[in-house]
Amino acid sequence: RLFSAEKVIHKDWALPNPSWSKDLKLLFDQFMKKCEDGSWKRLPSYQHRSTQISEDFKTYFLDKPLNNENKVSQIVQLFTRGFEDGLGFEYVIFSNNDEKRTVCLFQGGPYLQGVPGFLHGGAMATMIDTALGSCATIPGGAIMTANLNINFKRPVPLCSVVVINSQLDKLEGRKLFLSCNVRSVDEKTLYSEAT
Amino acid sequence: RLFSAEKVIHKDWALPNPSWSKDLKLLFDQFMKKCEDGSWKRLPSYQHRSTQISEDFKTYFLDKPLNNENKVSQIVQLFTRGFEDGLGFEYVIFSNNDEKRTVCLFQGGPYLQGVPGFLHGGAMATMIDTALGSCATIPGGAIMTANLNINFKRPVPLCSVVVINSQLDKLEGRKLFLSCNVRSVDEKTLYSEAT
Repeated sequence: RLFSAEKVIHKDWALPNPSWSKDLKLLFDQFMKKCEDGSWKRLPSYQHRSTQISEDFKTYFLDKPLNNENKVSQIVQLFTRGFEDGLGFEYVIFSNNDEKRTVCLFQGGPYLQGVPGFLHGGAMATMIDTALGSCATIPGGAIMTANLNINFKRPVPLCSVVVINSQLDKLEGRKLFLSCNVRSVDEKTLYSEAT
Repeated sequence: RLFSAEKVIHKDWALPNPSWSKDLKLLFDQFMKKCEDGSWKRLPSYQHRSTQISEDFKTYFLDKPLNNENKVSQIVQLFTRGFEDGLGFEYVIFSNNDEKRTVCLFQGGPYLQGVPGFLHGGAMATMIDTALGSCATIPGGAIMTANLNINFKRPVPLCSVVVINSQLDKLEGRKLFLSCNVRSVDEKTLYSEAT
């Protein structure tokens, strides 16, 4: 049974591990300090999603029953958490619900390469989708990306740390409008913008 | 040395392996038949890009030298080819240069999960970027995605096969304009459209 509760593994991946660079650890510590007064909170991250999210999703977005539940392998993993420490997506997201924004700290490892020396555009798109998604959950309820529009300004060097600032711009019925930018740790380099 | 020629591994990943479903093998065989008269060709796919591509890229797109060449691990891998057979991105791209279009056959494995039972939007974005990129290379020269705009119509069931039809719409100086759609094998379901 793919969606059974026993498949939920409780390791929280949004915590430092030895692969984290000095930049990533420093930023993490800064945001953990901001969490102390309750204005910000760190979002935990698990390899397998809960049954409840799955059920919500099916209720909201599917007009016919899934036909692949039995075929799908037992070894499913959340795309962004399927890599060994440091090789893939190392990230943590902090959320400020009052200000309706999130900050994602992201270090892309050597298995995410596109053009040699740089992050694959798809890996950046994946992290942008994840960051915007985290911001879209602030109002509550099941969400699914309907449109993703990314401007890639500069390629991101592999193994560097970037900061993704996302915000909820507008609510129109069930539609949410969000935007984000991807910058270097010193904020001087704008890598991407997306809505 | 990250970019040295000896790192280029010659295994061609765009060929059937035991994880390929009947749908994927059938479509592969159909397109291989179309290759016989030379109108279509199968694009090979390697885990490591060649030194030449790397040098082209640096010449065209970087205004300052890379500073991470020595820091980056030896174990870099092309994002879409870093998974064991069947777990990640299984795909092959066929190109029709006269018609300036490509067809990408894609089966997304269990390590690409987003919402339970479905492909992660970022994995779909990655494959769309790859498919559009393959079409952008038809005129020749180094390319980099400047903008990627995706409309997600329906979520893609995990382990199913989709067909990505890409075409080159317009050339404006160094800018290329491309579009694609993602459909089920029977063409009845439109999963995504992108430019």
